Amino acid sequence: MSSYAARRTALRQELQATNLDALLVTNLLNVRYLTGFTGSNAAVIIGADGDDVFCTDGRYLTQSAKQVPDLERLIDRPCDTALAARAKGRLGFESHHVTVDGLDELTAAAGKAELHKAGGLVEKLRLVKDEVEIEALRMACAAADRALAALIGHGGLRAGRTEREVARELESRMLDHGAEGPSFSSIVAFGANSAVPHHSPTDATLRTGDLIKLDFGALVDGYHSDMTRTLVLGRPADWQRDLYDLVARSQAAGRGALTPGARVSDVDHASREVIEKAGHGNEFLHGLGHGVGLEIHEAPALSKAGAGTLSAGMAVTVEPGVYLSGRGGVRIEDTLVVRESGPELLTLTTKELVVV
Amino acid sequence: MSSYAARRTALRQELQATNLDALLVTNLLNVRYLTGFTGSNAAVIIGADGDDVFCTDGRYLTQSAKQVPDLERLIDRPCDTALAARAKGRLGFESHHVTVDGLDELTAAAGKAELHKAGGLVEKLRLVKDEVEIEALRMACAAADRALAALIGHGGLRAGRTEREVARELESRMLDHGAEGPSFSSIVAFGANSAVPHHSPTDATLRTGDLIKLDFGALVDGYHSDMTRTLVLGRPADWQRDLYDLVARSQAAGRGALTPGARVSDVDHASREVIEKAGHGNEFLHGLGHGVGLEIHEAPALSKAGAGTLSAGMAVTVEPGVYLSGRGGVRIEDTLVVRESGPELLTLTTKELVVV
Repeated sequence: MSSYAARRTALRQELQATNLDALLVTNLLNVRYLTGFTGSNAAVIIGADGDDVFCTDGRYLTQSAKQVPDLERLIDRPCDTALAARAKGRLGFESHHVTVDGLDELTAAAGKAELHKAGGLVEKLRLVKDEVEIEALRMACAAADRALAALIGHGGLRAGRTEREVARELESRMLDHGAEGPSFSSIVAFGANSAVPHHSPTDATLRTGDLIKLDFGALVDGYHSDMTRTLVLGRPADWQRDLYDLVARSQAAGRGALTPGARVSDVDHASREVIEKAGHGNEFLHGLGHGVGLEIHEAPALSKAGAGTLSAGMAVTVEPGVYLSGRGGVRIEDTLVVRESGPELLTLTTKELVVV
Repeated sequence: MSSYAARRTALRQELQATNLDALLVTNLLNVRYLTGFTGSNAAVIIGADGDDVFCTDGRYLTQSAKQVPDLERLIDRPCDTALAARAKGRLGFESHHVTVDGLDELTAAAGKAELHKAGGLVEKLRLVKDEVEIEALRMACAAADRALAALIGHGGLRAGRTEREVARELESRMLDHGAEGPSFSSIVAFGANSAVPHHSPTDATLRTGDLIKLDFGALVDGYHSDMTRTLVLGRPADWQRDLYDLVARSQAAGRGALTPGARVSDVDHASREVIEKAGHGNEFLHGLGHGVGLEIHEAPALSKAGAGTLSAGMAVTVEPGVYLSGRGGVRIEDTLVVRESGPELLTLTTKELVVV
């Protein structure tokens, strides 16, 4: 059975548990997850009894035949109402995705079906990645690792370069190494700018003694990688090395807490505690991490206020940071998979303090 | 008055006409349009009587103070429910944007306000661009023009290069010329691939005699440009020149029909008629064009089935194409502004057949 068919089978079990006859899936990422279709317009009905129908429009006639060979196909536009018109019984819809106006259109189109709110069912499955997904994440992380190695190896981090130039080179090198694109707008921050958690690259130039914070990722087969490394140009000052060591210890503690069954708030705590004990709790300004997959930010959130526990197969980031306003900040981030045997590290660039 | 304040004043008139006390704007592009805020999380309430309140979260404290100095600011998260909780009277919400689950949350949060569907009010204003918007579109079109000139001037279109390589160089050169990024994934198609309207770049290589179809655009200040040019590598064959001349005549007819008051279906017809008379009507596979602005595709659609008329200040594309399956296709596309005195051309690259 293909991984797509296996995912549809898992969804059918959810449908039976919620007493729905079928689910109308309109979120395009969820359609991709369930069918493998990568075009820009599609929807699919998954039936509790296995009557699945995929819909796209005429532009994707050839592509959908190739990507979705195993489902009944409808070529129509718009897909959501075309599918609703064919449905019967208790039809769930993605209420976290369908708009209020969209529901009016679905209601008008649905002849024999009775519409029911059913938001988040596919996202619940997406929480735990299968091995096909993990392989895509592995490739995405590898593209980012290789791009950073090439950037450093070719002297890309030298005095006088601007944040914008470095961001462009990093993104270009990810394409060289198999990425479809960057997985989000790269953060490149030099010197005091590194104290801004989500700094956008500027024309500020790199100077000897600067911290260099690089937060970036690659997109491969629709899956996102996410990695942060902080380096120093030239000899690190004592405060830079101390800050780096603190964040590295915090990050290792967070990674160590990634076990199936652990509460996400406890994982956050394990990492945060290290920074709080060093008196920098107020300078760790964000949650510890987040799920990654078909979206760059998805469930679960690893944070103080986060609810729920980890399961084997979840892919998450662990990214503590300490930001000293006006001086500089350090963040260290990996993408990892929760495993019974301990977390699997997907971002393989060293976490020793790299001096360039 | 700033252009943002003028837009809010125009919206107030719409609110009075629809008998609403205020509109809760949650579509981020609409928030940007009305306030100038460019961050990733915000909402704004526009009051019929001028009681406007802007909301964003703590990450954007400094940025929002700079970008939105003239509105009362609330720092909270999530913004939509925080604003709804403060509202009174008849409160419109963007029903084309708020999800079904989102409306449940708004309803629970709205203490004294009565929620009413009010989708599309801001989009209605966005149909006609003001001069600040047109200047941004002009800069975006200029970045694309200059990138193409540099690509050709530096020998970027030579035999042996792949579609992917050319797409990357084009996108890189747009950044050199002031773009924040490409405004969509560039289409680069060589030879028979040019017959696929929305071809994605592959590793196919450029060969002498190939048609070269380039459909691309730049993003400047949040505004999108859109341009297609079709060129030939080496001496054009007679059929290529004939096809090119036909599409160029059709495109000129479409541009000529862009007058205030013209029905959009008539503009489509003016251009399509030229191609139909030449016996290629079935090979012009899409609508004539679309509005451009804060989105790459927005209203009005210039198509056979399109409703409504043009107004001065609308920014649209005109992009007929003829696609000969297995041989090649030609599309020629400009971005223009509808003006009383005749359309203003924003994409200035020649439409003579360029031979490289």
